[in-house]
Amino acid sequence: MDKQTEQKRAAGEYAASLIEDGMVVGLGTGSTVKFFIERLAARINQEGLDIVGVTTSRQTSSLAKGWGIKLKSVDEMPGIDITIDGADEVDVALNGIKGGGAALLFEKIVALNSSRNVWIIDESKYHPKLGTFPLPVEVVPYGSHQLLKRFADADLHPQFRRNADGLRLTTDAGNYIIDLQLTEITHPQALAYYLEQTIGVVEHGLFLQVADAVIIGGDDITIIERQA
Amino acid sequence: MDKQTEQKRAAGEYAASLIEDGMVVGLGTGSTVKFFIERLAARINQEGLDIVGVTTSRQTSSLAKGWGIKLKSVDEMPGIDITIDGADEVDVALNGIKGGGAALLFEKIVALNSSRNVWIIDESKYHPKLGTFPLPVEVVPYGSHQLLKRFADADLHPQFRRNADGLRLTTDAGNYIIDLQLTEITHPQALAYYLEQTIGVVEHGLFLQVADAVIIGGDDITIIERQA
Repeated sequence: MDKQTEQKRAAGEYAASLIEDGMVVGLGTGSTVKFFIERLAARINQEGLDIVGVTTSRQTSSLAKGWGIKLKSVDEMPGIDITIDGADEVDVALNGIKGGGAALLFEKIVALNSSRNVWIIDESKYHPKLGTFPLPVEVVPYGSHQLLKRFADADLHPQFRRNADGLRLTTDAGNYIIDLQLTEITHPQALAYYLEQTIGVVEHGLFLQVADAVIIGGDDITIIERQA
Repeated sequence: MDKQTEQKRAAGEYAASLIEDGMVVGLGTGSTVKFFIERLAARINQEGLDIVGVTTSRQTSSLAKGWGIKLKSVDEMPGIDITIDGADEVDVALNGIKGGGAALLFEKIVALNSSRNVWIIDESKYHPKLGTFPLPVEVVPYGSHQLLKRFADADLHPQFRRNADGLRLTTDAGNYIIDLQLTEITHPQALAYYLEQTIGVVEHGLFLQVADAVIIGGDDITIIERQA
């Protein structure tokens, strides 16, 4: 296991220790969350915990079902106690970019319905400012070429995300992803407002003031709580 | 033909007289637009006009194809010269509510890409203020029950739109419609911002500063141009 994978594992397994009997737990998506889910499943089996998982993607549903974790939709539960999710980039204010796994829409919906959101990352994801990682924007397919042109005119360096076959990737909700190569995002809140008001944008990967805490895997585990 | 239908017909047929040879024309959705499309098809046939239509719904695609109108997607054309669409309610500033036919998302995308937007309505749709007609909001199905509760808590009187079988209606983009029964919308721009920033909202039926002109069918045709 390389160093980054080891850090992902450490963060994911630590997060599993935060889960208590009886909790409704939002299950994020991605390679770090995979370690969390595996450790959580082990705890459920060994300790007989009563846990309900709420999924953020087909990929995670499939994984959690494989481990025998009980799953419900976000609409079947009155609320979610805690959500553990990954992030592609996190800044010092605990704002983040998510969507590298194309699950940003359902991840944001689950986060919104969670009392507490905890992200698990390796050290390489933690930066002073956002923007190194391309910002994913989930868009309605109809009109998306026009939207891409509009983003290009606004110097947002957009490109459609494609799958291994070179076809435009389709999300679980049937939309496209446009990645914006921004290098540095100086005003994340302003960019978020702009994207939310843009017709054809379903959701964007800026998760601002969402994470209550971030767990960074490293030689030691680092936990940063968001200052309210 | 009752009076309202007669007014729809008058507005729709008048709008067809605005179309010129060579234009790319956005084709709205609904019962008033149906009269426009029929008259436009007649002009295309009689006068040999070269017209490309850009559709806003499966319903309109089907109708226009049936009349032999050449269709392209909004992404296949560099731009749209003029879009003719209906509206469910229009105020004196020419702001409107659309989405009674559940096509608001594609209608807004087509409107955004049109050099000129003209709405055709009967007299009953023209009101001093918006809000008599329920405001449609297109939402992502996942989390939509939680969103409905959130709207209810905000006193927005939401309800899912249902089809004749009592099932939740699904839009052409695979989303649900929540109708907000507001009676009067005193601050449409503020409400639009709120909805755009709400996670799970794909689009809303407030079309603010979109219509360049409104054609009202009546004993005479009334044309109101928006003051810039």
